[in-house]
Amino acid sequence: MSAPTLYLAPGTCALAVHIALHEAQAGHELVRLDFAAQQQRSPEYLAINPKGRVPALVTEHGVLTETPALLAYVAQRYAQGQLAPLDPFAFARMQEFNSYLASTVHVAHAHGRRGSRWADDPASHADMLRKVPQTMAECFGVIEDHYLQGPWVLGEQYSVADAYLFTLSGWLRSDGVDVAQFPKVADHRRRMAERPAVQRALA
Amino acid sequence: MSAPTLYLAPGTCALAVHIALHEAQAGHELVRLDFAAQQQRSPEYLAINPKGRVPALVTEHGVLTETPALLAYVAQRYAQGQLAPLDPFAFARMQEFNSYLASTVHVAHAHGRRGSRWADDPASHADMLRKVPQTMAECFGVIEDHYLQGPWVLGEQYSVADAYLFTLSGWLRSDGVDVAQFPKVADHRRRMAERPAVQRALA
Ligand SMILES: N[C@@H](CCC(=O)N[C@@H](CS)C(=O)NCC(=O)O)C(=O)O
Ligand SMILES: N[C@@H](CCC(=O)N[C@@H](CS)C(=O)NCC(=O)O)C(=O)O
Repeated sequence: MSAPTLYLAPGTCALAVHIALHEAQAGHELVRLDFAAQQQRSPEYLAINPKGRVPALVTEHGVLTETPALLAYVAQRYAQGQLAPLDPFAFARMQEFNSYLASTVHVAHAHGRRGSRWADDPASHADMLRKVPQTMAECFGVIEDHYLQGPWVLGEQYSVADAYLFTLSGWLRSDGVDVAQFPKVADHRRRMAERPAVQRALA
Repeated sequence: MSAPTLYLAPGTCALAVHIALHEAQAGHELVRLDFAAQQQRSPEYLAINPKGRVPALVTEHGVLTETPALLAYVAQRYAQGQLAPLDPFAFARMQEFNSYLASTVHVAHAHGRRGSRWADDPASHADMLRKVPQTMAECFGVIEDHYLQGPWVLGEQYSVADAYLFTLSGWLRSDGVDVAQFPKVADHRRRMAERPAVQRALA
Protein backbone atom coordinates (compact mmCIF):
# COMPACT_ATOMS: atom_id res chain seq x y z
CA MET A 1 0.00 0.00 0.00
CA SER A 2 1.78 3.11 -1.26
CA ALA A 3 1.12 6.68 -0.11
CA PRO A 4 -1.32 8.64 -2.29
CA THR A 5 0.08 11.33 -4.61
CA LEU A 6 -1.70 14.68 -4.84
CA TYR A 7 -1.38 16.80 -7.98
CA LEU A 8 -1.90 20.44 -7.10
CA ALA A 9 -1.02 24.02 -8.01
CA PRO A 10 -0.57 26.94 -5.60
CA GLY A 11 -3.62 29.09 -4.88
CA THR A 12 -6.11 26.55 -6.20
CA CYS A 13 -8.94 24.51 -4.70
CA ALA A 14 -6.46 21.62 -4.37
CA LEU A 15 -5.43 23.19 -1.06
CA ALA A 16 -8.56 21.67 0.52
CA VAL A 17 -7.45 18.10 -0.22
CA HIS A 18 -3.89 18.97 0.76
CA ILE A 19 -5.08 20.14 4.20
CA ALA A 20 -7.25 17.02 4.55
CA LEU A 21 -4.27 14.76 3.82
CA HIS A 22 -2.24 16.54 6.51
CA GLU A 23 -5.15 16.28 8.97
CA ALA A 24 -5.46 12.55 8.22
CA GLN A 25 -1.71 12.07 8.70
CA ALA A 26 -1.97 9.60 5.88
CA GLY A 27 1.47 10.23 4.48
CA HIS A 28 1.34 11.57 0.92
CA GLU A 29 3.45 12.72 -1.98
CA LEU A 30 2.95 16.01 -3.81
CA VAL A 31 3.39 16.95 -7.46
CA ARG A 32 3.13 20.68 -8.13
CA LEU A 33 1.96 21.74 -11.59
CA ASP A 34 3.07 25.03 -13.11
CA PHE A 35 -0.09 26.65 -14.45
CA ALA A 36 1.92 29.53 -15.99
CA ALA A 37 3.59 26.90 -18.16
CA GLN A 38 0.17 25.24 -18.80
CA GLN A 39 1.40 21.95 -17.35
CA GLN A 40 -2.22 21.03 -16.53
CA ARG A 41 -2.77 20.69 -20.29
CA SER A 42 0.34 18.61 -21.02
CA PRO A 43 -0.19 15.11 -22.49
CA GLU A 44 1.47 13.63 -19.38
CA TYR A 45 -1.01 15.27 -17.04
CA LEU A 46 -4.04 14.67 -19.30
CA ALA A 47 -3.20 10.96 -19.03
CA ILE A 48 -3.72 11.33 -15.27
CA ASN A 49 -6.70 13.70 -15.38
CA PRO A 50 -8.28 14.09 -18.84
CA LYS A 51 -10.15 17.15 -17.54
CA GLY A 52 -6.86 19.07 -17.21
CA ARG A 53 -7.61 20.35 -13.73
CA VAL A 54 -6.32 19.98 -10.21
CA PRO A 55 -6.72 18.35 -7.75
CA ALA A 56 -6.10 14.75 -8.81
CA LEU A 57 -5.15 12.06 -6.33
CA VAL A 58 -3.36 8.90 -7.39
CA THR A 59 -4.52 6.29 -4.92
CA GLU A 60 -3.73 2.61 -4.40
CA HIS A 61 -6.78 1.81 -6.58
CA GLY A 62 -6.51 4.44 -9.29
CA VAL A 63 -6.82 8.18 -9.95
CA LEU A 64 -9.63 10.17 -8.36
CA THR A 65 -10.65 13.76 -9.17
CA GLU A 66 -13.26 16.34 -8.05
CA THR A 67 -12.75 18.02 -4.71
CA PRO A 68 -15.93 16.86 -2.90
CA ALA A 69 -15.27 13.24 -3.92
CA LEU A 70 -11.62 13.45 -2.85
CA LEU A 71 -12.46 15.01 0.49
CA ALA A 72 -14.98 12.30 1.33
CA TYR A 73 -12.55 9.64 0.11
CA VAL A 74 -9.72 10.91 2.33
CA ALA A 75 -12.07 11.05 5.32
CA GLN A 76 -13.34 7.51 4.74
CA ARG A 77 -10.06 5.89 3.69
CA TYR A 78 -8.18 7.32 6.70
CA ALA A 79 -11.05 6.98 9.14
CA GLN A 80 -8.76 7.29 12.17
CA GLY A 81 -8.48 11.00 11.30
CA GLN A 82 -12.21 11.43 12.15
CA LEU A 83 -12.64 13.91 9.33
CA ALA A 84 -16.26 13.12 8.51
CA PRO A 85 -19.29 12.30 10.65
CA LEU A 86 -20.32 8.65 10.78
CA ASP A 87 -24.04 9.36 11.14
CA PRO A 88 -25.56 9.15 7.62
CA PHE A 89 -27.61 12.34 7.87
CA ALA A 90 -24.65 14.36 9.20
CA PHE A 91 -22.53 12.90 6.40
CA ALA A 92 -25.17 14.06 3.90
CA ARG A 93 -25.04 17.56 5.44
CA MET A 94 -21.29 17.61 4.88
CA GLN A 95 -21.75 16.51 1.26
CA GLU A 96 -24.44 19.16 0.77
CA PHE A 97 -22.03 21.84 1.95
CA ASN A 98 -19.14 20.57 -0.16
CA SER A 99 -21.37 20.24 -3.22
CA TYR A 100 -22.52 23.83 -2.85
CA LEU A 101 -18.92 25.01 -2.65
CA ALA A 102 -17.95 23.06 -5.79
CA SER A 103 -20.99 23.77 -7.95
CA THR A 104 -21.82 27.36 -6.95
CA VAL A 105 -19.11 29.12 -4.91
CA HIS A 106 -16.04 27.86 -6.79
CA VAL A 107 -17.88 28.48 -10.07
CA ALA A 108 -18.74 32.07 -9.05
CA HIS A 109 -15.07 32.73 -8.32
CA ALA A 110 -13.88 31.11 -11.56
CA HIS A 111 -15.81 33.67 -13.61
CA GLY A 112 -13.20 36.23 -12.59
CA ARG A 113 -10.26 34.50 -14.23
CA ARG A 114 -11.56 31.68 -16.38
CA GLY A 115 -14.38 33.43 -18.23
CA SER A 116 -13.15 31.90 -21.48
CA ARG A 117 -14.63 28.60 -20.35
CA TRP A 118 -18.12 29.98 -20.93
CA ALA A 119 -17.85 32.87 -23.43
CA ASP A 120 -15.52 34.03 -26.19
CA ASP A 121 -15.75 37.83 -26.29
CA PRO A 122 -13.30 39.76 -24.06
CA ALA A 123 -16.15 42.15 -23.24
CA SER A 124 -18.10 39.23 -21.76
CA HIS A 125 -15.08 38.25 -19.66
CA ALA A 126 -14.81 41.79 -18.31
CA ASP A 127 -18.53 41.77 -17.54
CA MET A 128 -18.17 38.47 -15.64
CA LEU A 129 -15.18 39.76 -13.71
CA ARG A 130 -17.17 42.83 -12.63
CA LYS A 131 -19.89 40.65 -11.11
CA VAL A 132 -17.60 38.41 -9.03
CA PRO A 133 -17.62 40.59 -5.88
CA GLN A 134 -21.42 40.49 -5.88
CA THR A 135 -21.84 36.76 -6.52
CA MET A 136 -19.12 35.79 -4.04
CA ALA A 137 -20.65 38.05 -1.38
CA GLU A 138 -24.07 36.48 -2.02
CA CYS A 139 -22.62 32.98 -1.66
CA PHE A 140 -20.86 33.82 1.57
CA GLY A 141 -24.03 35.46 2.87
CA VAL A 142 -25.81 32.14 2.37
CA ILE A 143 -22.96 30.30 4.10
CA GLU A 144 -22.85 32.75 7.03
CA ASP A 145 -26.61 32.82 7.58
CA HIS A 146 -27.59 29.23 6.85
CA TYR A 147 -24.81 26.69 6.64
CA LEU A 148 -21.78 27.47 8.81
CA GLN A 149 -23.00 26.22 12.19
CA GLY A 150 -19.92 27.37 14.09
CA PRO A 151 -17.30 27.05 15.28
CA TRP A 152 -16.88 24.44 12.52
CA VAL A 153 -19.09 23.95 9.49
CA LEU A 154 -20.93 21.05 11.09
CA GLY A 155 -20.91 22.53 14.60
CA GLU A 156 -18.64 20.98 17.21
CA GLN A 157 -17.20 18.36 14.88
CA TYR A 158 -14.32 19.38 12.62
CA SER A 159 -14.53 17.81 9.14
CA VAL A 160 -13.10 18.04 5.64
CA ALA A 161 -15.80 20.65 4.92
CA ASP A 162 -13.74 23.04 7.06
CA ALA A 163 -10.66 22.56 4.90
CA TYR A 164 -12.78 23.29 1.83
CA LEU A 165 -14.45 26.38 3.29
CA PHE A 166 -11.06 27.74 4.38
CA THR A 167 -9.73 27.27 0.85
CA LEU A 168 -12.58 29.16 -0.80
CA SER A 169 -12.88 31.90 1.85
CA GLY A 170 -9.18 32.51 1.15
CA TRP A 171 -10.20 33.76 -2.29
CA LEU A 172 -12.51 36.51 -1.00
CA ARG A 173 -9.89 39.23 -0.73
CA SER A 174 -8.70 38.84 -4.32
CA ASP A 175 -12.35 38.68 -5.36
CA GLY A 176 -12.94 42.12 -3.87
CA VAL A 177 -14.97 40.97 -0.86
CA ASP A 178 -14.14 41.92 2.74
CA VAL A 179 -14.47 38.79 4.88
CA ALA A 180 -15.19 41.01 7.91
CA GLN A 181 -18.78 41.30 6.55
CA PHE A 182 -19.16 37.65 7.54
CA PRO A 183 -18.14 37.35 11.21
CA LYS A 184 -18.60 33.57 11.44
CA VAL A 185 -16.56 33.00 8.29
CA ALA A 186 -13.84 35.39 9.57
CA ASP A 187 -13.74 33.55 12.91
CA HIS A 188 -13.55 30.26 11.04
CA ARG A 189 -10.53 31.50 9.09
CA ARG A 190 -8.74 32.46 12.33
CA ARG A 191 -9.39 29.05 13.93
CA MET A 192 -8.27 27.23 10.80
CA ALA A 193 -5.03 29.25 10.58
CA GLU A 194 -4.08 27.92 14.04
CA ARG A 195 -4.28 24.27 13.02
CA PRO A 196 -0.92 22.56 12.44
CA ALA A 197 -2.26 20.71 9.39
CA VAL A 198 -3.26 24.00 7.77
CA GLN A 199 0.12 25.56 8.54
CA ARG A 200 1.90 22.57 7.03
CA ALA A 201 -0.21 22.65 3.87
CA LEU A 202 0.43 26.38 3.43
CA ALA A 203 4.17 26.14 4.16
CA MET B 1 -40.91 7.91 10.06
CA SER B 2 -42.68 9.91 7.38
CA ALA B 3 -42.02 9.69 3.65
CA PRO B 4 -39.57 12.28 2.30
CA THR B 5 -40.95 15.19 0.26
CA LEU B 6 -39.17 16.23 -2.93
CA TYR B 7 -39.49 19.82 -4.20
CA LEU B 8 -38.96 19.86 -7.95
CA ALA B 9 -39.82 21.61 -11.20
CA PRO B 10 -40.29 20.00 -14.64
CA GLY B 11 -37.23 19.81 -16.88
CA THR B 12 -34.73 20.47 -14.07
CA CYS B 13 -31.91 18.52 -12.47
CA ALA B 14 -34.39 17.48 -9.75
CA LEU B 15 -35.42 14.67 -12.11
CA ALA B 16 -32.31 12.76 -11.01
CA VAL B 17 -33.42 12.61 -7.37
CA HIS B 18 -36.98 11.87 -8.47
CA ILE B 19 -35.80 8.84 -10.45
CA ALA B 20 -33.63 7.72 -7.51
CA LEU B 21 -36.61 7.86 -5.14
CA HIS B 22 -38.64 5.70 -7.54
CA GLU B 23 -35.75 3.26 -7.88
CA ALA B 24 -35.44 3.05 -4.08
CA GLN B 25 -39.20 2.48 -3.75
CA ALA B 26 -38.93 4.59 -0.64
CA GLY B 27 -42.37 6.12 -0.93
CA HIS B 28 -42.21 9.89 -1.34
CA GLU B 29 -44.32 13.01 -1.74
CA LEU B 30 -43.82 15.59 -4.47
CA VAL B 31 -44.25 19.35 -4.49
CA ARG B 32 -43.98 20.94 -7.94
CA LEU B 33 -42.81 24.53 -8.11
CA ASP B 34 -43.91 26.81 -10.92
CA PHE B 35 -40.74 28.51 -12.17
CA ALA B 36 -42.73 30.70 -14.56
CA ALA B 37 -44.40 32.18 -11.46
CA GLN B 38 -40.98 32.37 -9.72
CA GLN B 39 -42.22 30.16 -6.89
CA GLN B 40 -38.62 29.13 -6.20
CA ARG B 41 -38.05 32.68 -4.92
CA SER B 42 -41.17 32.88 -2.74
CA PRO B 43 -40.65 33.44 1.00
CA GLU B 44 -42.31 30.07 1.68
CA TYR B 45 -39.83 28.20 -0.48
CA LEU B 46 -36.81 30.23 0.65
CA ALA B 47 -37.65 29.06 4.18
CA ILE B 48 -37.14 25.51 2.90
CA ASN B 49 -34.16 26.21 0.63
CA PRO B 50 -32.57 29.64 1.12
CA LYS B 51 -30.69 29.15 -2.17
CA GLY B 52 -33.97 29.31 -4.12
CA ARG B 53 -33.24 26.25 -6.24
CA VAL B 54 -34.53 22.73 -6.73
CA PRO B 55 -34.13 19.95 -5.75
CA ALA B 56 -34.75 20.11 -2.01
CA LEU B 57 -35.72 17.03 -0.02
CA VAL B 58 -37.53 17.28 3.30
CA THR B 59 -36.37 14.24 5.23
CA GLU B 60 -37.18 12.83 8.66
CA HIS B 61 -34.13 14.74 9.99
CA GLY B 62 -34.37 18.03 8.10
CA VAL B 63 -34.06 19.57 4.65
CA LEU B 64 -31.24 18.53 2.32
CA THR B 65 -30.22 20.19 -0.94
CA GLU B 66 -27.61 19.74 -3.72
CA THR B 67 -28.12 16.91 -6.18
CA PRO B 68 -24.94 14.86 -5.50
CA ALA B 69 -25.60 14.96 -1.74
CA LEU B 70 -29.25 14.00 -2.21
CA LEU B 71 -28.44 11.13 -4.55
CA ALA B 72 -25.91 9.66 -2.11
CA TYR B 73 -28.36 10.17 0.74
CA VAL B 74 -31.19 8.35 -1.05
CA ALA B 75 -28.82 5.48 -1.91
CA GLN B 76 -27.57 5.16 1.68
CA ARG B 77 -30.85 5.79 3.49
CA TYR B 78 -32.73 3.24 1.36
CA ALA B 79 -29.87 0.80 1.10
CA GLN B 80 -32.16 -2.06 0.06
CA GLY B 81 -32.42 -0.34 -3.33
CA GLN B 82 -28.69 -1.05 -3.95
CA LEU B 83 -28.26 2.30 -5.67
CA ALA B 84 -24.63 2.88 -4.70
CA PRO B 85 -21.62 0.60 -4.43
CA LEU B 86 -20.60 -0.45 -0.92
CA ASP B 87 -16.89 -0.62 -1.70
CA PRO B 88 -15.36 2.74 -0.61
CA PHE B 89 -13.30 3.28 -3.76
CA ALA B 90 -16.23 2.50 -6.05
CA PHE B 91 -18.36 4.85 -3.94
CA ALA B 92 -15.72 7.57 -4.45
CA ARG B 93 -15.85 6.94 -8.22
CA MET B 94 -19.59 7.50 -8.13
CA GLN B 95 -19.13 10.73 -6.19
CA GLU B 96 -16.44 11.86 -8.62
CA PHE B 97 -18.85 11.38 -11.50
CA ASN B 98 -21.74 13.12 -9.75
CA SER B 99 -19.48 16.00 -8.68
CA TYR B 100 -18.34 16.52 -12.24
CA LEU B 101 -21.94 16.63 -13.44
CA ALA B 102 -22.89 19.19 -10.78
CA SER B 103 -19.84 21.47 -10.94
CA THR B 104 -19.03 21.37 -14.64
CA VAL B 105 -21.73 19.84 -16.86
CA HIS B 106 -24.79 21.34 -15.19
CA VAL B 107 -22.94 24.68 -14.98
CA ALA B 108 -22.08 24.59 -18.70
CA HIS B 109 -25.75 24.05 -19.53
CA ALA B 110 -26.93 26.79 -17.15
CA HIS B 111 -25.00 29.39 -19.13
CA GLY B 112 -27.60 29.04 -21.88
CA ARG B 113 -30.55 30.21 -19.80
CA ARG B 114 -29.24 31.59 -16.53
CA GLY B 115 -26.41 33.81 -17.76
CA SER B 116 -27.65 36.59 -15.48
CA ARG B 117 -26.19 34.68 -12.57
CA TRP B 118 -22.69 35.58 -13.75
CA ALA B 119 -22.94 38.71 -15.94
CA ASP B 120 -25.27 41.67 -16.38
CA ASP B 121 -25.02 42.71 -20.04
CA PRO B 122 -27.47 41.03 -22.46
CA ALA B 123 -24.61 40.81 -24.98
CA SER B 124 -22.69 38.65 -22.51
CA HIS B 125 -25.70 36.39 -22.08
CA ALA B 126 -25.97 35.97 -25.86
CA ASP B 127 -22.24 35.19 -26.01
CA MET B 128 -22.62 32.54 -23.28
CA LEU B 129 -25.61 30.99 -25.03
CA ARG B 130 -23.61 30.69 -28.27
CA LYS B 131 -20.90 28.69 -26.52
CA VAL B 132 -23.21 26.13 -24.87
CA PRO B 133 -23.19 23.60 -27.76
CA GLN B 134 -19.37 23.58 -27.66
CA THR B 135 -18.97 23.27 -23.87
CA MET B 136 -21.69 20.64 -23.56
CA ALA B 137 -20.17 18.61 -26.40
CA GLU B 138 -16.76 18.82 -24.70
CA CYS B 139 -18.21 17.64 -21.40
CA PHE B 140 -19.99 14.71 -23.01
CA GLY B 141 -16.81 13.86 -24.94
CA VAL B 142 -15.04 13.51 -21.57
CA ILE B 143 -17.90 11.37 -20.22
CA GLU B 144 -18.01 9.15 -23.32
CA ASP B 145 -14.25 8.63 -23.53
CA HIS B 146 -13.28 8.44 -19.86
CA TYR B 147 -16.08 8.04 -17.35
CA LEU B 148 -19.10 6.12 -18.66
CA GLN B 149 -17.89 2.54 -18.29
CA GLY B 150 -20.98 0.99 -19.86
CA PRO B 151 -23.57 -0.24 -19.85
CA TRP B 152 -24.01 1.79 -16.64
CA VAL B 153 -21.80 4.62 -15.42
CA LEU B 154 -19.96 2.34 -13.01
CA GLY B 155 -19.97 -0.68 -15.31
CA GLU B 156 -22.25 -3.61 -14.45
CA GLN B 157 -23.70 -1.97 -11.34
CA TYR B 158 -26.58 0.45 -11.78
CA SER B 159 -26.38 3.44 -9.40
CA VAL B 160 -27.79 6.90 -8.76
CA ALA B 161 -25.08 8.23 -11.10
CA ASP B 162 -27.13 6.75 -13.94
CA ALA B 163 -30.21 8.73 -12.94
CA TYR B 164 -28.09 11.88 -12.90
CA LEU B 165 -26.42 11.23 -16.26
CA PHE B 166 -29.81 10.50 -17.85
CA THR B 167 -31.13 13.81 -16.52
CA LEU B 168 -28.28 15.88 -17.93
CA SER B 169 -27.97 13.99 -21.22
CA GLY B 170 -31.66 14.81 -21.66
CA TRP B 171 -30.64 18.46 -22.02
CA LEU B 172 -28.33 17.88 -25.00
CA ARG B 173 -30.93 18.30 -27.72
CA SER B 174 -32.12 21.69 -26.45
CA ASP B 175 -28.46 22.66 -26.04
CA GLY B 176 -27.87 22.04 -29.74
CA VAL B 177 -25.85 18.84 -29.36
CA ASP B 178 -26.68 15.59 -31.17
CA VAL B 179 -26.38 12.74 -28.68
CA ALA B 180 -25.64 10.35 -31.56
CA GLN B 181 -22.06 11.72 -31.50
CA PHE B 182 -21.67 9.87 -28.21
CA PRO B 183 -22.71 6.24 -28.82
CA LYS B 184 -22.26 5.09 -25.22
CA VAL B 185 -24.30 8.00 -23.90
CA ALA B 186 -27.00 7.37 -26.53
CA ASP B 187 -27.12 3.68 -25.57
CA HIS B 188 -27.32 4.68 -21.90
CA ARG B 189 -30.34 6.87 -22.66
CA ARG B 190 -32.11 3.98 -24.39
CA ARG B 191 -31.49 1.60 -21.48
CA MET B 192 -32.61 4.17 -18.95
CA ALA B 193 -35.84 4.87 -20.84
CA GLU B 194 -36.79 1.20 -20.41
CA ARG B 195 -36.61 1.28 -16.61
CA PRO B 196 -39.97 1.44 -14.83
CA ALA B 197 -38.62 3.95 -12.28
CA VAL B 198 -37.63 6.32 -15.07
CA GLN B 199 -41.00 5.95 -16.78
CA ARG B 200 -42.77 6.68 -13.50
CA ALA B 201 -40.66 9.78 -12.80
CA LEU B 202 -41.31 11.13 -16.31
CA ALA B 203 -45.04 10.36 -16.25
N1 LIG C 1 -14.86 20.59 -10.16
C1 LIG C 1 -13.43 20.57 -9.95
C2 LIG C 1 -12.83 21.87 -10.44
C3 LIG C 1 -11.33 21.84 -10.44
C4 LIG C 1 -10.76 23.13 -11.00
O1 LIG C 1 -11.44 23.88 -11.73
N2 LIG C 1 -9.50 23.39 -10.64
C5 LIG C 1 -8.83 24.61 -11.13
C6 LIG C 1 -7.97 25.23 -10.03
S1 LIG C 1 -8.95 25.88 -8.67
C7 LIG C 1 -7.93 24.25 -12.29
O2 LIG C 1 -7.28 23.20 -12.28
N3 LIG C 1 -7.84 25.11 -13.31
C8 LIG C 1 -6.92 24.92 -14.39
C9 LIG C 1 -7.45 25.35 -15.71
O3 LIG C 1 -8.64 25.76 -15.79
O4 LIG C 1 -6.68 25.29 -16.67
C10 LIG C 1 -13.14 20.36 -8.45
O5 LIG C 1 -13.96 20.79 -7.62
O6 LIG C 1 -12.12 19.72 -8.11
N1 LIG D 1 -25.95 22.85 -7.31
C1 LIG D 1 -27.39 22.62 -7.35
C2 LIG D 1 -27.98 23.42 -8.48
C3 LIG D 1 -29.48 23.41 -8.46
C4 LIG D 1 -30.04 24.28 -9.57
O1 LIG D 1 -29.38 25.16 -10.11
N2 LIG D 1 -31.32 24.02 -9.94
C5 LIG D 1 -31.97 24.77 -10.97
C6 LIG D 1 -32.82 23.86 -11.85
S1 LIG D 1 -31.84 22.72 -12.80
C7 LIG D 1 -32.88 25.81 -10.34
O2 LIG D 1 -33.52 25.54 -9.33
N3 LIG D 1 -32.97 27.02 -10.93
C8 LIG D 1 -33.88 28.00 -10.48
C9 LIG D 1 -33.34 29.39 -10.57
O3 LIG D 1 -32.16 29.58 -10.93
O4 LIG D 1 -34.10 30.30 -10.25
C10 LIG D 1 -27.69 21.13 -7.51
O5 LIG D 1 -26.88 20.42 -8.12
O6 LIG D 1 -28.71 20.64 -6.98
